[in-house]
Amino acid sequence: MINFKLMKRLFPVLFLIATSISAQSDIEKIKSYVSNKKYDWLKEFMEFIAIPNINPDSINLHQNAYFIQKLLNDRGVHTELLKPDMKGVAPVVYGEILTPGATKTIAFYAHYDGQPVNPAQWLSGLSPFKPQLATDRMDRGGKFISLPENKNDLNDDWRLYGRSSADDKAGVYAIIAGYEALKESGCTAGINIKFFFEGQEEMGSTNLPDIMIKYKEKLNTDLWLIADGPRHQSGRKQVVFGVRGDVNLGINVFGAKRPLHSGNYGNWAPNPAMRLAQLLASMKDKNGNVTIKNFYTDVVPLTAAELKALNEVPEVEELLKKELGINKPDGGGKKYLELLSLPTLNINGFQSANVGAQAANIIPTVASAVLDLRLVKGNNVDKQMKKVVDHIKMQGYYVTDKEPTDDERAKYPLIAQVRKIGNGYNAQRTPMNLPIAQEVIKAIQRTTPDKMVLLPSLGGSLPLYMFETILKAQPITLTMVNYDNNQHAENENLHLKFLWEAIESVAAVMKFY
Amino acid sequence: MINFKLMKRLFPVLFLIATSISAQSDIEKIKSYVSNKKYDWLKEFMEFIAIPNINPDSINLHQNAYFIQKLLNDRGVHTELLKPDMKGVAPVVYGEILTPGATKTIAFYAHYDGQPVNPAQWLSGLSPFKPQLATDRMDRGGKFISLPENKNDLNDDWRLYGRSSADDKAGVYAIIAGYEALKESGCTAGINIKFFFEGQEEMGSTNLPDIMIKYKEKLNTDLWLIADGPRHQSGRKQVVFGVRGDVNLGINVFGAKRPLHSGNYGNWAPNPAMRLAQLLASMKDKNGNVTIKNFYTDVVPLTAAELKALNEVPEVEELLKKELGINKPDGGGKKYLELLSLPTLNINGFQSANVGAQAANIIPTVASAVLDLRLVKGNNVDKQMKKVVDHIKMQGYYVTDKEPTDDERAKYPLIAQVRKIGNGYNAQRTPMNLPIAQEVIKAIQRTTPDKMVLLPSLGGSLPLYMFETILKAQPITLTMVNYDNNQHAENENLHLKFLWEAIESVAAVMKFY
Repeated sequence: MINFKLMKRLFPVLFLIATSISAQSDIEKIKSYVSNKKYDWLKEFMEFIAIPNINPDSINLHQNAYFIQKLLNDRGVHTELLKPDMKGVAPVVYGEILTPGATKTIAFYAHYDGQPVNPAQWLSGLSPFKPQLATDRMDRGGKFISLPENKNDLNDDWRLYGRSSADDKAGVYAIIAGYEALKESGCTAGINIKFFFEGQEEMGSTNLPDIMIKYKEKLNTDLWLIADGPRHQSGRKQVVFGVRGDVNLGINVFGAKRPLHSGNYGNWAPNPAMRLAQLLASMKDKNGNVTIKNFYTDVVPLTAAELKALNEVPEVEELLKKELGINKPDGGGKKYLELLSLPTLNINGFQSANVGAQAANIIPTVASAVLDLRLVKGNNVDKQMKKVVDHIKMQGYYVTDKEPTDDERAKYPLIAQVRKIGNGYNAQRTPMNLPIAQEVIKAIQRTTPDKMVLLPSLGGSLPLYMFETILKAQPITLTMVNYDNNQHAENENLHLKFLWEAIESVAAVMKFY
Repeated sequence: MINFKLMKRLFPVLFLIATSISAQSDIEKIKSYVSNKKYDWLKEFMEFIAIPNINPDSINLHQNAYFIQKLLNDRGVHTELLKPDMKGVAPVVYGEILTPGATKTIAFYAHYDGQPVNPAQWLSGLSPFKPQLATDRMDRGGKFISLPENKNDLNDDWRLYGRSSADDKAGVYAIIAGYEALKESGCTAGINIKFFFEGQEEMGSTNLPDIMIKYKEKLNTDLWLIADGPRHQSGRKQVVFGVRGDVNLGINVFGAKRPLHSGNYGNWAPNPAMRLAQLLASMKDKNGNVTIKNFYTDVVPLTAAELKALNEVPEVEELLKKELGINKPDGGGKKYLELLSLPTLNINGFQSANVGAQAANIIPTVASAVLDLRLVKGNNVDKQMKKVVDHIKMQGYYVTDKEPTDDERAKYPLIAQVRKIGNGYNAQRTPMNLPIAQEVIKAIQRTTPDKMVLLPSLGGSLPLYMFETILKAQPITLTMVNYDNNQHAENENLHLKFLWEAIESVAAVMKFY
C-alpha cells in the first residue's frame, strides 16, 4: 500500500494533482456502480418502506432495526443494537468499519422512525406502508406505476410514495448503499466509518441521551454526519451546520361538561372552539410575528460568517410562492432564510367536535390544539415553553396539566390544560469553518458541477445539541431528498434521483480525500 | 252520544264542573293504561331506534317511514307517504282520524331523522343505532342493563341511549302511543287528528315547502302541535310559542397547496389554522357578544306579554352552571332566556390537520370551521349570512364559494371559501294568547300538578316559519324529553319517564276539553 501521508509531506503539489485526478476517477467509478444498482436497491428500499415505523409501535420498530442489521450484514458490516436502560424502546442500529491507515473517524447518522400518519388523509390508492411508485408527483399529473420488469425502464424522475420514503429511511439507505458503492466500485475508504441509525427521532430522541452516555467510548468520532432533511429548493446539494430545537405543546380549552344543543344553549354556554380561537389569535399578529412577551429576546444573532453564507444561498422565494400557491408569506417582509433563523410558534393542528358531513349543531365540550415551537441558538426549551404558558395565564386562563376537576370548573371562568409533548430539545450550531467539515464539503462537491449550498442552520430540527453536550462532538447535516417530499404529512414521497445522488455523496465522503 | 256542545250552551257552570270531573277521570284512565304498556312500548321503541336515520341515507330513512306506517296501521290509523317531486327524499308519513262531532283539527308533528353521528365519539359500549338501556346517565355512574325479563322490573329513571332516542323519535312515538292510550283506555277524542312525521328536519326540512304546497288542502288545520325538544330544565312540562331560525355556514381558509414541514417553512409559510383562529376570534368579544357589524340590528323585541311570560319561568342558571361545570356563562351578565331571544353565532366545530397521537410537525394546507347561526324574529337567513360574509371581507379576505384556483392564490393574500350548508330558515313566533293554544295548555296541565312553563320562543330551531307562510297555520311546540339528553351529540339518551309523561300529554291534548 502506498503511504499517502508520507507522499503528501514530500511532494505536496504533485500529491494535490495526483489525488485530484484519482478522486475524479473514483467518483466516476462510484457513479457507474450506482447507475447499475438502482433497480436492485429500489426493490430492497421498498421492502424497507413497507415496515411500519411509528412510535410507540415497538414491535414494528424492532422489525425495522432487524432489517437494517441485515442490510449492513449483507455488506460485510458487523452490527449490534445499542439499547437504553428503558425496555421496549426502538434500539439504535450500530456498525463500524475500521480503515487501515485512516486517522479520522466519521459517524453517519440517520433515523428509521417516521412521523405519525392518518392514512385517511392520503390520496386514494396510497397507503403509508404500501410503497407505491408514480411517474411524477400525483398532484402534478403523476400516474401509479409498478416496478418495471426491465431494470432499464426505471426512471430517475419517478416518485416513491410511502411514510419515511424521504424522512428518513432515505437517509438510512443512502448511507448503507453509499458504503456498498464505495467498496464494490473498487475504491477504498479514507476514514474510519461508524454507522448509527436511530428509531426515536420523530418523538424527540427521548432515549438517545441515555444511549450516548452508556456507549460514550464507542461513539467517539471526529465528526458526525447527519443524513436527513431536504436538499435546497434550488435543487443543489447542501450541507447545514445547525438545526433549530423543537418542543411540542398540547392545549385543551373547555366548555360545558357535555355537548350542548347550539340552539337551546347558544349565546349562554361558552364555546371552547371560540375560546381557543381567541387564545391562539392572541399569540400572533397578522404578519405571523409572535406577540408573546419576550418570545424573541434570547436569540443569539448570526455571526458575520453565517450572514455571509446566507447571502450566498440562491434565492428561492418566488419559486416557492408559485409552487405552493402563496401570495404573501408571513414575516412582514423578512427574508425566508432570516425567518428560519428565528424561533417559531406553529399550529400543527386543531380540532373541536366535527366539520364536514359529521358537523352537528352543538356547542363542543373541548377544543384542542397542538403547537410546535422551533428554537434557535440562545433559546431554552423550558424557558420558551414557559413564555407560552405565561401568555396563556395573561389571557385570564387558569393553567393545569390535567383534566379540570369539578372544583376547578366551579372556581375558574377560563381553564386551559397545557402539556409538554415529549421532552423537546435545544438548537445546535457547528462553526462553519471547522476543518473536517470543509473536507467533507470538498468531497461532496466532487460529485456535482453545481456549487453546493452551505447553510448556518436548517429550519428543521434534530437532537444535535446532544452530540455537543454529551459526546463533545461536532455534527453537520447532509440534506438529501427533494424539497417537495411532503415530509411529516400525508403523501410523503421521494424523487428517486435524489436517493441515487445521496448515495454518491455518502460514498464520496467515505472516500474522503 | 251526548251532545256536549248543546249541554255546554244550556248549562255552562254545570258543564264546566262535569267536564272537569270527567276530564280528571279520563286522565286517570289514560295514566293507568300508560303504566301498563311501558314495557311493550319500550321494546317497540328500541326497534325504532335501531333503524339508522341520518340524511342522506335514503334507504334507511325509508325503512323508518315504513316502520312508522306499521306503528300507525297497527293502531287502526290509515297512512300514506307524502312525497315531494324530488326523488329519493325521505317522505312524510301522514295519517288522519276524523272524530264525529269534533269542530277542531290539530295536526301532530314530529321528525324521524337524526343529526349526523361520529360513532367513534360515543362512549365505549354505546353505538348510535344499537339502543342500549342504562340504570342512570353513564357519566353519573349509570350501568348498562338489558331489557328485564319481568315487565315490573322496568324503572322510569333508566336511560335509553341511541341516536334520536330523544330527538326526535321520542316525539314520533309519543304521538302514536298517545293516540293508542286515548283510544284503548276507553276515552274518545275531542278533535280531528292529523299525524305528520317528517324525515328531513335535521337537514333544514329542505323539501317540506314542496310537500306543504303539494298537499295544502290535506294539511289544513286549526293548530299544529310540534312534538320536539327538551322540557324545561326545572323538569316541568312546557309549551313553546316560537323557535329560532337557523342556517349553517362552512368556512375554509387556505395555506400552502401542500402540507409543509413546520421547521423548514415555519415563520415563512402562512398557517391556515392561525388565520382561521384570527378570523373566528374577530367575530366575538371575550363575553361571547358577536362583534360583526349590524349583527343584532334587525331583531324584533319581545312583546310585553312575552316578557311577562319570561319572568314567570323558573330560574335555572345556577342549576345549569353546576351541572355543566360552567363558572361564567357568555353574554356579559344577560339572563339565559334573554340570550335565547337573540341571534347566535356558534362554532359547531373546527379542524385543521390533526391533534393527539396523529399530530405531526407540519403547517397544514387548510383549516375548516362550521358555523351555526340561530335567527330570531326580524332576522332573515340570507341577510344574516351576508353580515358574516361581509365581515370576512372586512378582515381582508377574498371570499369564494369554491376551492381557490392557482390564479386566485397568486392574486389574493387571504382566501376564504364560504358555503351555505342547506337552505336555512327564519324564526317563527305564534301569539301567546291564541285561544286554541290556551285549550291545549289546559289539557296538558291536567296531567301534571306542577305549573307548566310557557315560553315565547325555544332557543332551538324548527322550520315553523313554513307553517305560517305556506299553510297560514299556527304552530306551537310541546317539548317533551329530558334536558340532559345530549341531543345532536354523542351519547344521546332518553330518560324513560319523560317518554311516558309525553304520551300522557299527547293523549290529553287529543282528548281536548
